[in-house]
Amino acid sequence: MARVAVILSGCGVFDGTEIHEAVLTLLALDREGAQVECLAPNKPQMHVVNHLTKQPTNETRNVLVESARIARGKIRDLAEAKADEFDAVILPGGFGAAKNLSNYAVKGEKMELDPHVKRFLHDMHKQGKPIGGICISPVLLAKAFGSGGSPKITIGKDPETANHIEALGAEHISCPVDDFVVDPEHKIVTTPAYMLARSIGETAAGIEKLVHEVLRLVKARKPAHA
Amino acid sequence: MARVAVILSGCGVFDGTEIHEAVLTLLALDREGAQVECLAPNKPQMHVVNHLTKQPTNETRNVLVESARIARGKIRDLAEAKADEFDAVILPGGFGAAKNLSNYAVKGEKMELDPHVKRFLHDMHKQGKPIGGICISPVLLAKAFGSGGSPKITIGKDPETANHIEALGAEHISCPVDDFVVDPEHKIVTTPAYMLARSIGETAAGIEKLVHEVLRLVKARKPAHA
Repeated sequence: MARVAVILSGCGVFDGTEIHEAVLTLLALDREGAQVECLAPNKPQMHVVNHLTKQPTNETRNVLVESARIARGKIRDLAEAKADEFDAVILPGGFGAAKNLSNYAVKGEKMELDPHVKRFLHDMHKQGKPIGGICISPVLLAKAFGSGGSPKITIGKDPETANHIEALGAEHISCPVDDFVVDPEHKIVTTPAYMLARSIGETAAGIEKLVHEVLRLVKARKPAHA
Repeated sequence: MARVAVILSGCGVFDGTEIHEAVLTLLALDREGAQVECLAPNKPQMHVVNHLTKQPTNETRNVLVESARIARGKIRDLAEAKADEFDAVILPGGFGAAKNLSNYAVKGEKMELDPHVKRFLHDMHKQGKPIGGICISPVLLAKAFGSGGSPKITIGKDPETANHIEALGAEHISCPVDDFVVDPEHKIVTTPAYMLARSIGETAAGIEKLVHEVLRLVKARKPAHA
């Protein structure tokens, strides 16, 4: 049974995890028989956005505490998680990836990753374990691994984001909403989801394929008798 | 194309909508070709629960504003919605149904429905339109329609909740997690979801069947040439 970490970044598309993408990832992993653990950084959100008016509020909320809503309380501080415990990791999208897991929303191609996200992703990569990125999260993978041999990555076709990915040293490949891009050498799998999707069904189609591919790479890595 | 209202009650299982149940409902409706609108009451939540510690906090949050997180901002005040605009309505579960759409969590069988929930459900029912209830939400349907001829309803098999449903005048039918109960006369369809489910996949199985049955009842109601 593959052990898969899902890194959340809050609860809601405008200041945290894109909720549909996270739930669809959890569903696809469960249906493929994976053992899933949700992780999130234990720190304040960059800000809180009223999702009705789309305006920032003066509230403060914690990324781990809000992510726990999606995980039904079963979640762990990313700082405590070790790559040894997992066979793969998947990052759903939402502005939380660009605001809480990194500062991409503010800094663009001059972005930095949250230190725990950086450590966990690099440790997984060093151990040759597959990494999935959904929606805007592939930008974080470009930042993490762009300097290590131009991994092939997609966020769909948005020109500005694609340019940032190329500036970070990765290669952007255009991709339709119901498909994914895999870089077999780097074991990085990415899909556009709500960067392109006009419906939850379109989002689900790409995520189901991404999850299947991530788990195929896990199986390909393990010896058959393991 | 069937027009389906989904009534949300916040964002998170312990003080609002059960997020997985809501997203899986939206996915199933989209895949069946329905046109969906999310609705929620515009009022303060009964309380706010930290989903990591499961303890209440001293924050205040608004049901409509938090529900907008699940709806990606596309949501309307339930007070403005009219039964004429819809062919069916579905209520996902979560404690929000028992805390914000009603006071069942506090009052048990002496519960009252939120006035807008009550009006909308009664108007839909009077117009002969199907109503779906997931997880704990069927208790609200027992309250709304129990005095009108003992509708058949399930919340799975929890004895205390089943007793409350019977005390409210409905008939409780035991049901496994991956199935549903339909009362064709009252056009009420219910499924246990996380009242019984041990995984998101189990929850999805029952919800997909419930959504299919609700839409079958919509089609059965409309003349073929409509």
